[in-house]
Amino acid sequence: MYSFTNDYSEGTHPRILAALSESNLQQNIGYGQDIYCAKAMDTLKKKIGHDNIDIHFLVGGTQTNLIAISAFLRPHEAAIAADTGHILVHETGAIEATGHKAISVHTTDGKLTAELINSVLQAHTDEHMVKPKLVYISDSTEIGSIYTKTELKSLSRFCREKNLILFLDGARLGSALCSSENDLQLSDLAELTDAFYIGGTKNGALFGEALVICNDSLKEDFRFHIKQKGAMLAKGWLLGIQFFELFKDDLYFELAAHANKMANILKKNITELGYKFSSNSPSNQLFPIFPNKIIDELEENYSFNRCEKVDDKNSCIRLVTSWATKEDAVLDFIKALKKLTV
Amino acid sequence: MYSFTNDYSEGTHPRILAALSESNLQQNIGYGQDIYCAKAMDTLKKKIGHDNIDIHFLVGGTQTNLIAISAFLRPHEAAIAADTGHILVHETGAIEATGHKAISVHTTDGKLTAELINSVLQAHTDEHMVKPKLVYISDSTEIGSIYTKTELKSLSRFCREKNLILFLDGARLGSALCSSENDLQLSDLAELTDAFYIGGTKNGALFGEALVICNDSLKEDFRFHIKQKGAMLAKGWLLGIQFFELFKDDLYFELAAHANKMANILKKNITELGYKFSSNSPSNQLFPIFPNKIIDELEENYSFNRCEKVDDKNSCIRLVTSWATKEDAVLDFIKALKKLTV
Amino acid sequence: MYSFTNDYSEGTHPRILAALSESNLQQNIGYGQDIYCAKAMDTLKKKIGHDNIDIHFLVGGTQTNLIAISAFLRPHEAAIAADTGHILVHETGAIEATGHKAISVHTTDGKLTAELINSVLQAHTDEHMVKPKLVYISDSTEIGSIYTKTELKSLSRFCREKNLILFLDGARLGSALCSSENDLQLSDLAELTDAFYIGGTKNGALFGEALVICNDSLKEDFRFHIKQKGAMLAKGWLLGIQFFELFKDDLYFELAAHANKMANILKKNITELGYKFSSNSPSNQLFPIFPNKIIDELEENYSFNRCEKVDDKNSCIRLVTSWATKEDAVLDFIKALKKLTV
Amino acid sequence: MYSFTNDYSEGTHPRILAALSESNLQQNIGYGQDIYCAKAMDTLKKKIGHDNIDIHFLVGGTQTNLIAISAFLRPHEAAIAADTGHILVHETGAIEATGHKAISVHTTDGKLTAELINSVLQAHTDEHMVKPKLVYISDSTEIGSIYTKTELKSLSRFCREKNLILFLDGARLGSALCSSENDLQLSDLAELTDAFYIGGTKNGALFGEALVICNDSLKEDFRFHIKQKGAMLAKGWLLGIQFFELFKDDLYFELAAHANKMANILKKNITELGYKFSSNSPSNQLFPIFPNKIIDELEENYSFNRCEKVDDKNSCIRLVTSWATKEDAVLDFIKALKKLTV
Repeated sequence: MYSFTNDYSEGTHPRILAALSESNLQQNIGYGQDIYCAKAMDTLKKKIGHDNIDIHFLVGGTQTNLIAISAFLRPHEAAIAADTGHILVHETGAIEATGHKAISVHTTDGKLTAELINSVLQAHTDEHMVKPKLVYISDSTEIGSIYTKTELKSLSRFCREKNLILFLDGARLGSALCSSENDLQLSDLAELTDAFYIGGTKNGALFGEALVICNDSLKEDFRFHIKQKGAMLAKGWLLGIQFFELFKDDLYFELAAHANKMANILKKNITELGYKFSSNSPSNQLFPIFPNKIIDELEENYSFNRCEKVDDKNSCIRLVTSWATKEDAVLDFIKALKKLTV
Repeated sequence: MYSFTNDYSEGTHPRILAALSESNLQQNIGYGQDIYCAKAMDTLKKKIGHDNIDIHFLVGGTQTNLIAISAFLRPHEAAIAADTGHILVHETGAIEATGHKAISVHTTDGKLTAELINSVLQAHTDEHMVKPKLVYISDSTEIGSIYTKTELKSLSRFCREKNLILFLDGARLGSALCSSENDLQLSDLAELTDAFYIGGTKNGALFGEALVICNDSLKEDFRFHIKQKGAMLAKGWLLGIQFFELFKDDLYFELAAHANKMANILKKNITELGYKFSSNSPSNQLFPIFPNKIIDELEENYSFNRCEKVDDKNSCIRLVTSWATKEDAVLDFIKALKKLTV
Repeated sequence: MYSFTNDYSEGTHPRILAALSESNLQQNIGYGQDIYCAKAMDTLKKKIGHDNIDIHFLVGGTQTNLIAISAFLRPHEAAIAADTGHILVHETGAIEATGHKAISVHTTDGKLTAELINSVLQAHTDEHMVKPKLVYISDSTEIGSIYTKTELKSLSRFCREKNLILFLDGARLGSALCSSENDLQLSDLAELTDAFYIGGTKNGALFGEALVICNDSLKEDFRFHIKQKGAMLAKGWLLGIQFFELFKDDLYFELAAHANKMANILKKNITELGYKFSSNSPSNQLFPIFPNKIIDELEENYSFNRCEKVDDKNSCIRLVTSWATKEDAVLDFIKALKKLTV
Repeated sequence: MYSFTNDYSEGTHPRILAALSESNLQQNIGYGQDIYCAKAMDTLKKKIGHDNIDIHFLVGGTQTNLIAISAFLRPHEAAIAADTGHILVHETGAIEATGHKAISVHTTDGKLTAELINSVLQAHTDEHMVKPKLVYISDSTEIGSIYTKTELKSLSRFCREKNLILFLDGARLGSALCSSENDLQLSDLAELTDAFYIGGTKNGALFGEALVICNDSLKEDFRFHIKQKGAMLAKGWLLGIQFFELFKDDLYFELAAHANKMANILKKNITELGYKFSSNSPSNQLFPIFPNKIIDELEENYSFNRCEKVDDKNSCIRLVTSWATKEDAVLDFIKALKKLTV
């Protein structure tokens, strides 16, 4: 049984494990105030090309989203997200649990636009409704699509014009930035968003997300929010060590490139076999549509998520590749699919 | 300028004012533990025909919704509502501010059905999503429609089967129960819902809603929630006096019947003039569609809300009648409309 | 049975009732955007002697406290209050329910000082603890004491120095300002606090508190918070009418002066009979200490709250006078007490 | 520089690191539904000697406290804790941020008793105050003291009598259970509390706490709360592996015994040198009182926390030993102290 269920099925890249092992019995200061976190922050600032940013290392994605959004908003303010957005679908109402409405916007490709956001603003006219204030986007999105520089610039311009906070969930930012269709860089994110995070959990870390706060007005007292939400890791250096390893030599991008390469092999072959996809993904999540009976047979040797039914006979599944995906497993999967396709 | 903007544009029915005046200088115990509240509760229990219910008098509708829903739910549980539902549209995220997601369901008539709710249940599969637990309905709905006994029975059966709490917002319950199309009675509500409220603010009271909790498991400690949310009126007897006056001689139903009668005159005449309505309302809110230029002219002498644009030339407006609506004003409005229609 | 239980045992002053009656059948715009609220705000601004303030009319005290405090604070910030403070003792955790810790400071007289607050600041050293940000005081306090101008100035200076918000709960502000020991005026409050409220419920209104926001940075979007917490009264003009009546001719101060006069009669006579008080109150709440058996006998004809036991034989009770307290009742009470005293 | 600052200054015990390394590249199911978590739960159930318990692995202590307490309580219910309790002092208002008041009770030894809790119950008389519902205790406490079986039984009996939830924070449970003064076992905790947790972070794990829910009525839907609060670790097996290693061969107790042994050496020698302690601790946290100038000199080679000043010349410090504390470092510290003592 080989798993394409997600990109966090294995532990961590051996170089990260080695670094954790090497420092294991050293004494460190707690709560992220150690030298490893300091080094990781320095390194990240250089990679991002901006110094006037605050970086906080957190354990997971839902945690990062809920802390950032609740710290950034006043009680009557709401987040806007695509209807596929993680905060709307798979976080058990974590945003609402901090008191804020998350407004759903229907999209076909998982991406928000100035026009879509504007329609939300138009509909919220007075104090009998929440005040839309934060725009939540994901790159790559939950259905695999990615933002172009032009799109992100346009969104950013609109948000600044309307005094909206632009927050980018980068749980799968590595795969987005290493996609063949990408033209964004980390420095662009720092310039175009108010805050974003660089996902580690889904790109080779044991766990960890690096939240980058770019907008000065959002920086104050942020560590209080981390602690209050139970997210301040006692042995914070574990995060620092991991992010230092990921970024000191571009390991982060190598790992994401591998995940994308594996996805591209799948995509190319699945396409050649005549199958369609429910979304156009240039990143490490693919959503092919197969006949149900083929899916049943594939499930005997592979694990993956079934998404929605397309019609009575066909369904969409999700295949996720990662830094750890073995090329052999991908080729075997294709071989099996070919055999079933006839 | 005559207002059809809403059903809470005037003070209170003269009999209620008289009762408030008469008792004005008496000393009473505070916080709803006075004899007037006791009398009002007794009277209501008789009208409802059930004794095993708890009644709490609150000041307003949003307040009642947020206290009831937050008292009834555990943190991970969510409310389901029609997309026109007041809690989703016009309460500034009051439910989310208590930590709970409100799940929106698209309907054409403002009413939920077992089928619609079931689709929400199907979509919420595990602990990565909120747990749908409370069904919020309004009668009459925000677009004027009302539930039939058959519909409410079916909803109730489904909710009990699925262990869902059925909560009915009765801000405009008077108009619903007095509609010519209605076949529900207060006793039905007590049998079919877990909790509901009888709106006073929109039917002749200065202010006040009577929340009725039918399900024993939802009753415990409810007064703590009222106080915690800042809703325990110091001079609670003001609510008791009003509800006693409204129900001791069926004044409540007389007032609602008047509002409906005024709406019926409007509806009949508007229909005869060839206009359509954006929703089919047998209650005291009407949503006629008029040419924009006619709306502009009507606005010189009448106030009302403009709803959405129907097309470039036509828009929908909302006309609300009430216990205080004068028949002369209604007839004048029709005369004016006729003149503009030609 | 005559009640000295509190200052909200009767309805409203006849002039207010008359004003409410007179306007009863007029049509008004809802939610506090009517002409009466506008007039009341104008009048209050003149009485306060400041124009650059925002005024919001709310229904009750707990409601006002929770909305103001939750609107003013970010999630990690806390309120500081004397251990007798209403938000700590009698609001069912309303502040905590909005997510904020209320820090208790022990005082002997119900009043905070710069020194007491500073000890809280000293104890809160880093992000592992909440950030004390808002200072909650009451005038008069829950045990009847009042602030002098010197005391309030000193507090105000300290709060500004430390970047703390100073919020004054004026549920019984009338009695404080009309106390013979008072040297504060409304204009002082506007200059020395960031926000305060003028209590109506306990000084002759049916209900209502006028929240005054002085600090510009706290004003933005305040009406959203009112609505979100279920506190935006549909028939908002009811509040406007009441506050206009209370302030157009200084009725507010006349009523408070009467309450104080009645308290003074009680205080003088109780003192002359040789009894002590558990707190030194120059306002309309008195806390005399009587033998338990005298309290038992008084309770046959008078209602009041029993506070704590002083020793095995003596207890403290609370006597509250109001705008509606009858001098005859006060004299009768004294007569009864004299008789019991021997 | 050697650190006695806390018991989470080093990584993890080598056996745990080895287990993590060994399984590193295996594929696992996410979110704690893997075979390692299952094995760890089985092992723990056997060690605890009870099968009818639910176990959830979480990342940190504040996280565990806030999720458990907010999941267990209704909105109006409050927690009671000793004034030294972690939830009151060092969690940035995490409990209040979930909407619940934490009531502080002054103790001299960090431990709650039936009598102390009863005084809280007596003071909370009606719906104008929160309803005390959960008793939060720590073993060992924040000042090093531990509960005896008699004490815990008495507390448990009282809580059941009063329908209170008894929750035990076991961040340092290892040290408590391995103290020479302890007579409690894990099975006792399962019988006497409604829920407790076994701390891993402070006893040799990289991170991790095992929450044990004993009371059936608190078990339902608990995983929803974990996810909603951002605490469901994607690679959940990391927690399972660690707890399996800690408990399969009693490593957990060996590590705690070592920490205690190191503390005992310190305690014995400090005592012999004539110094006093601010609290009587039989566990791995010691609070000796030293002259300030000795503390200054010690700080040149050792790090530790300074607690409160005792008088002008003396202060209390906190020395914490752990599974990783080296006996040589302890002996060096004592040598240095002797030298400074003269």
